[in-house]
Amino acid sequence: MRGIALFEEIRFLDTTLRDGEQTPGVSLTPEDKLTIAQNLDALGVAVIEAGSAIASEGERRSLRAIASAGLQAEICSFARANLPDLDAAIDCGVDSVHLVVPVSDLHIERKLKSNREAVLQRALEVTEYAKSHGLVVELSGEDASRADLDFLCRLYSSGIEAGADRLCFCDTVGLMVPERTFEVFRRLSALGAPVSIHCHNDFGMATSNTVAALRGGAAQAHVTINGIGERAGNTSLEEVTMILENLYGISTGIRCDMLYQVSRMVSRLTGIQVAPNKAIVGENAFTHEAGIHVDALLKDSSTYEAMQPEQVGRERRIVLGKKSGKAAVERALREFGLSVNHDQLCEIVTRVKELGDKGKRVTDADLQAISDIVLAREHEPMVRLQEVTVISGNRVTPTASVKIILNGKETLEAAAGVGPVDAAINAIRRSMVGVADVRLEEYHVDAITGGTNALVEVWVTMAKDDRKITASGAGADIIMASVEAVLEGINRLMWLEERKDG
Amino acid sequence: MRGIALFEEIRFLDTTLRDGEQTPGVSLTPEDKLTIAQNLDALGVAVIEAGSAIASEGERRSLRAIASAGLQAEICSFARANLPDLDAAIDCGVDSVHLVVPVSDLHIERKLKSNREAVLQRALEVTEYAKSHGLVVELSGEDASRADLDFLCRLYSSGIEAGADRLCFCDTVGLMVPERTFEVFRRLSALGAPVSIHCHNDFGMATSNTVAALRGGAAQAHVTINGIGERAGNTSLEEVTMILENLYGISTGIRCDMLYQVSRMVSRLTGIQVAPNKAIVGENAFTHEAGIHVDALLKDSSTYEAMQPEQVGRERRIVLGKKSGKAAVERALREFGLSVNHDQLCEIVTRVKELGDKGKRVTDADLQAISDIVLAREHEPMVRLQEVTVISGNRVTPTASVKIILNGKETLEAAAGVGPVDAAINAIRRSMVGVADVRLEEYHVDAITGGTNALVEVWVTMAKDDRKITASGAGADIIMASVEAVLEGINRLMWLEERKDG
Repeated sequence: MRGIALFEEIRFLDTTLRDGEQTPGVSLTPEDKLTIAQNLDALGVAVIEAGSAIASEGERRSLRAIASAGLQAEICSFARANLPDLDAAIDCGVDSVHLVVPVSDLHIERKLKSNREAVLQRALEVTEYAKSHGLVVELSGEDASRADLDFLCRLYSSGIEAGADRLCFCDTVGLMVPERTFEVFRRLSALGAPVSIHCHNDFGMATSNTVAALRGGAAQAHVTINGIGERAGNTSLEEVTMILENLYGISTGIRCDMLYQVSRMVSRLTGIQVAPNKAIVGENAFTHEAGIHVDALLKDSSTYEAMQPEQVGRERRIVLGKKSGKAAVERALREFGLSVNHDQLCEIVTRVKELGDKGKRVTDADLQAISDIVLAREHEPMVRLQEVTVISGNRVTPTASVKIILNGKETLEAAAGVGPVDAAINAIRRSMVGVADVRLEEYHVDAITGGTNALVEVWVTMAKDDRKITASGAGADIIMASVEAVLEGINRLMWLEERKDG
Repeated sequence: MRGIALFEEIRFLDTTLRDGEQTPGVSLTPEDKLTIAQNLDALGVAVIEAGSAIASEGERRSLRAIASAGLQAEICSFARANLPDLDAAIDCGVDSVHLVVPVSDLHIERKLKSNREAVLQRALEVTEYAKSHGLVVELSGEDASRADLDFLCRLYSSGIEAGADRLCFCDTVGLMVPERTFEVFRRLSALGAPVSIHCHNDFGMATSNTVAALRGGAAQAHVTINGIGERAGNTSLEEVTMILENLYGISTGIRCDMLYQVSRMVSRLTGIQVAPNKAIVGENAFTHEAGIHVDALLKDSSTYEAMQPEQVGRERRIVLGKKSGKAAVERALREFGLSVNHDQLCEIVTRVKELGDKGKRVTDADLQAISDIVLAREHEPMVRLQEVTVISGNRVTPTASVKIILNGKETLEAAAGVGPVDAAINAIRRSMVGVADVRLEEYHVDAITGGTNALVEVWVTMAKDDRKITASGAGADIIMASVEAVLEGINRLMWLEERKDG
């Protein structure tokens, strides 16, 4: 099989807004859907399956708005093989329908309580109906991977005669394997109409099956951003794109440098988090810790990266931890303007590893604290917390008072906020006015699961001018953990500033 | 290629504790590592790569503890091709070493500043050294996927002569594709020693490449729980296991029914969240929302599931949302003991969809509230919040007072807690003593990212006797959102109870 690759011109049908939105718990407003559609269009997908017109009034509002937004992409509605579904789609003014017909005996008999001939007849009727109303029709076999392939081909061929513009093969429960997908598509691609592949990820092979189908002659791949979708999701647009571009050398027409930003936006709007170890768009995809690797990476990034992060709109990140070697630690110290001799470096590395052995991530602030000790630098923290008191409730405005020693002088400030954490941080910020213009750039709390007494970890990025620093705080009290993180960040920023000036 | 499948007896080398722990930000304590090793052993993996002995003193403590824990599995340390690495491994009393030698010209020249012959010579010397100290040796080619295959085979063959027990092919930067992996392993499997496959997931194909290698004759697969690992991670144990068991009908010897619990444990201890759409172990892998699908699913689960959730130690979950059809809503109402007529059901479904159109997940409590309106059931909430006041800080014990109307009577209670949220919930709980034994079973806050004024959503599961209900609260104030969720849950539980009795 080596060398056989029947890649056609590759087109993507993105179904983030239909199959992706079927993710349990996801519910996008019409405004969210329009925003996502505009981004998919800018990304360069050929077809946007923007919803299922029959589903609800809100869904129809979305479809109408997207269909009339003047996008380049073909706008498509999902439809089952019945006239109400098609009429709803027609009413929304979409360009095309993804017309889904169950084709496995399991679905035909158990779900529809019907038979093959009746289903085939119905498919032809609705295809003709849709065509007579000017729609582009993609006739799709649901559960095709468990269907009799001869029956499927008969249905597809009849569909082409009835006017279907494209066909689609759905691996509805995600049980295909790449070698079989390739074989199936070699056969389907001879039918005389472009065939799409629509995969689900129940066994983790949606991406590979999709690529195998494209190798076998599929003309179009159904994908979603971040691979979201029902159950284990659908094929990831970003994975298939980068595989084709980088591993097969095929141009997809996708604006790869937008992939990360679109991934972040879809994650934010759907509330579906991307795993840190997700390929291409996961937080860690271009993050490196292990000492041995970072050493080589700094010599030549291709040693431990299969693609340049910039290609997908990202940056490389080096973090410290217990596996961090001398090269990574020295690089981080240099970023803080610290130069150390060999013995000092070894000592700092040892202490970083010790901290890591205790199960702790090493922030910039931790590294600074360690180097302070090793370099025997003593410096008073500029800001020291004396007292923080917060009051909150349904009948009181969340209010905090913070007493800090700032440059040796006791300062008391109070502030209100939208919640108790916000009030406390506002009070600290107010204390700093006129002393240092320190900004809270990022505030992150990991998901809290367990009881109301669970440990909370807060991570902040603080900035002053163009210098940024990460710091963290932890505890059972989210207010105190947040205050701790912010004060640590401020102290470290101020100290770097002082050293720069001195 | 159809029909060719050279599966050998399948063995897993699990590297959750080595490559998995190299995930940036992950740092397991020796106690965590022992717990994970014991679970991997119970799961049935053949080899546990438990760490890299040279890395740190904590790492060596872990390795010693795991090697002497009396596990069935072979305990392995990672080692580079030098004597200090091997001596550290020997010192820890492990059974075997995963002995890694860079084999691509890129790694040999850019990373090692060496040449092929020197690397080959070194590999043989260290293999002999390790064998002479009684270690089982798995000689591993780093970046093998970019190496000259002839050189790699020469190195492997020499390694076998020097005593290597097994070989390993590392796709270090994750750029293999399944069809090439299969071809490569057909060649490697003829070398005369068992060959492992070690994949990375940079393009999302680690699982498929691993299965392709096994089809091609690989004897062992390197995997991690949840696919954690550097960058985009490694091959997922759970995916490969279920593919082999369910799609190829091969027995892996893995206790599949433990997969979910081990996945949860590793996620908790490493802090690496599993995406909801992760195959097999993701939160949504067996969760269904869409109305059309749930209808068919309730008739026959195989219509929309490729495997039974019980097979991997899980349960099916049906949730409501804007795509929920009549069948799903009726089923949920029935679970609450509510029977409705056709018109009432249609009205409830419409209102559920409306709520969904606004972008909201529909909890049990939402469904109840809707059905109350439709059935024109008026019932006073049993518990109504009058006043909640919370004080917290570094010099005060987090304390809350809560004034509620409970069964028409005003009740005032106060309680302390480890943080302000805990204090508020404790005060509510105390108010309920003697009235109803309501338990807070789960408390979950999604990750908070943005500013300290970001919207927080709190989800709770409340229980009374053996009935459970989900409820939620949202707002910029985590305390008030938590109180709202808990009170809503209590009211709904009490009302269900009342109706049951009445």
